[in-house]
Amino acid sequence: MINFNEETYLRIGKGAMKLKSRIDEITAAVTQKGYKNLFLIGSGGSAAMFMPFEHFLKTKSTIPAYLEIAAELVVSGHNQLGKESVCIFTSSSGTTSETVAAAKYCKEKGATTICISGKEDVPFVKDASYAIVNEMDDFSASDADYIVLYMLYFSLMHKHGDFEKYEEFCENLAKLPDALVEVKKQCDEKAQQFAIRYKDAPYHMLTGAGSVWGETYSYAMCVMEEMQWIKTKSVKAAEFFHGSLELVDDNMSLIVIMGEDETRPMCQRVIDFAKRYTKNLTVFDTADYRLAGISDEFRQYLSPIIMTAVLDRVSIHLEAQRGHSLDIRRYYKVVEY
Amino acid sequence: MINFNEETYLRIGKGAMKLKSRIDEITAAVTQKGYKNLFLIGSGGSAAMFMPFEHFLKTKSTIPAYLEIAAELVVSGHNQLGKESVCIFTSSSGTTSETVAAAKYCKEKGATTICISGKEDVPFVKDASYAIVNEMDDFSASDADYIVLYMLYFSLMHKHGDFEKYEEFCENLAKLPDALVEVKKQCDEKAQQFAIRYKDAPYHMLTGAGSVWGETYSYAMCVMEEMQWIKTKSVKAAEFFHGSLELVDDNMSLIVIMGEDETRPMCQRVIDFAKRYTKNLTVFDTADYRLAGISDEFRQYLSPIIMTAVLDRVSIHLEAQRGHSLDIRRYYKVVEY
Repeated sequence: MINFNEETYLRIGKGAMKLKSRIDEITAAVTQKGYKNLFLIGSGGSAAMFMPFEHFLKTKSTIPAYLEIAAELVVSGHNQLGKESVCIFTSSSGTTSETVAAAKYCKEKGATTICISGKEDVPFVKDASYAIVNEMDDFSASDADYIVLYMLYFSLMHKHGDFEKYEEFCENLAKLPDALVEVKKQCDEKAQQFAIRYKDAPYHMLTGAGSVWGETYSYAMCVMEEMQWIKTKSVKAAEFFHGSLELVDDNMSLIVIMGEDETRPMCQRVIDFAKRYTKNLTVFDTADYRLAGISDEFRQYLSPIIMTAVLDRVSIHLEAQRGHSLDIRRYYKVVEY
Repeated sequence: MINFNEETYLRIGKGAMKLKSRIDEITAAVTQKGYKNLFLIGSGGSAAMFMPFEHFLKTKSTIPAYLEIAAELVVSGHNQLGKESVCIFTSSSGTTSETVAAAKYCKEKGATTICISGKEDVPFVKDASYAIVNEMDDFSASDADYIVLYMLYFSLMHKHGDFEKYEEFCENLAKLPDALVEVKKQCDEKAQQFAIRYKDAPYHMLTGAGSVWGETYSYAMCVMEEMQWIKTKSVKAAEFFHGSLELVDDNMSLIVIMGEDETRPMCQRVIDFAKRYTKNLTVFDTADYRLAGISDEFRQYLSPIIMTAVLDRVSIHLEAQRGHSLDIRRYYKVVEY
């Protein structure tokens, strides 16, 4: 596969698993102290990575959970946030300004903060109630970050009495980096064909549901828009039928991002509709890929990380076919705003 | 003003106010019984209309509130939903299939349901724990619906001890239909100029924050996409800087939807950025319009309904300039899906 360092990917992915005892220690401490609710707080890609966990918390656990955009939270406040809240943040650099400000804000409100970062020597980590420091590089950051988030949220759910098979789930997580390398190999030809066919497409509509909605949202905004300067619309599959459907025709690329949870029929409904009205439908479906060594019962939870492994290959091929580096920006970190 | 029936608009808007005693009766009953949380449940435009109230509930009250997409809720469930929940729905026809199914689902879970509709003789109304029937026509539906929603949510907040000035607020609401007719007159020239300038624009990016984010989201999806077949992206102002900003240049129309709450600086940040990099920036700002007879202290709450009054004029002029009827659909209610 082009532009893929398997060795680094596996080292970072497996490295994340070493944090399990640290994570279990943190979740034991916050559970013992007791908390009223969880706040999942991020910006852009980090908010999007929290979306599947908000979905799991509300559908698989009884812990009240709120997902908030960092900058909005700081200006607007939130009356459910207080001393009995546990607030979770992730920033690979540890310096994302809105996330750092929100962590400080929540700490000042008396909440317990758990901050995940790739860097150790930053106030974001030092000022956290609990910090989780994880090796990340730019390329593998989201996959390794996901593994940490799975352990953290599912450990909280486990200790809350909502997820019995946590230890077995973690044994499966440990096999995931190897399995995901194989997923990347399985999807690479499809990713390349997509990039060849759509390299000149000026606009894509992306739709997804449930645990992969966050991937849908962030792939549109943080990859296609930010890294490739391609216009997009991301719309939840259930919302697609309340307006966006009217745009569908052969002149438009429609991408369905499909996972394996209970919201699958909503994506299928979009697919069934779109097949009648456009030839430019692409479906990325986690169910198409073997996950060696992973128990089938856990696939419903793993759809977001499987999807990010697949879509990363799409990005690599878009970069190659379009001759547009994934690293180039016009504004972000180039000008002040 | 073209295509505006002032008499009908005022009759329906003022008619909504007659529901105050019915609404106060309902909120007294549910408050007396007691509830643990509120669920705001809708699809497309109706979900979008609930977004400002979710914002007010979390920032101005201590009532836990969850905004859910109707079809997602029914397939995924939500563990905070139960006998102690109050679930609120609106459907002007009373027949929106996902909303009707979600109301039935919540009732079966033992929750109290409050259903708002323009039609009386539908199961959606008959099966509700409490129904609010309001005259609506297609054109004025959202403004009249907003007035009902303001009374309902602010009455709940008032009885919960979170909004002292409810009666005074309602006295102001009663003056709103007249004030909004004047807003429409004030913005009409600007709306027409926008439509003339952008009648051939193939794509708009819309950004907004706080209490007007719902209007931003629905104007993009339910008007520009559904009624005009124009491609859009809607992105929260805080999220704009996490990807979408890279698209900004003179070839793209950027629309900032700006209200008068505490999130205003986020929209201002987008404006300050965009002014440097594009000539195609349009700002619709509720602060530009006089609201005759309305106390300034309530403007922060009224931004969504002011904005819908403004954007309705934009729709009318887009229809006229583009020769594309707001009523024409390719798929919705035309084909089965």
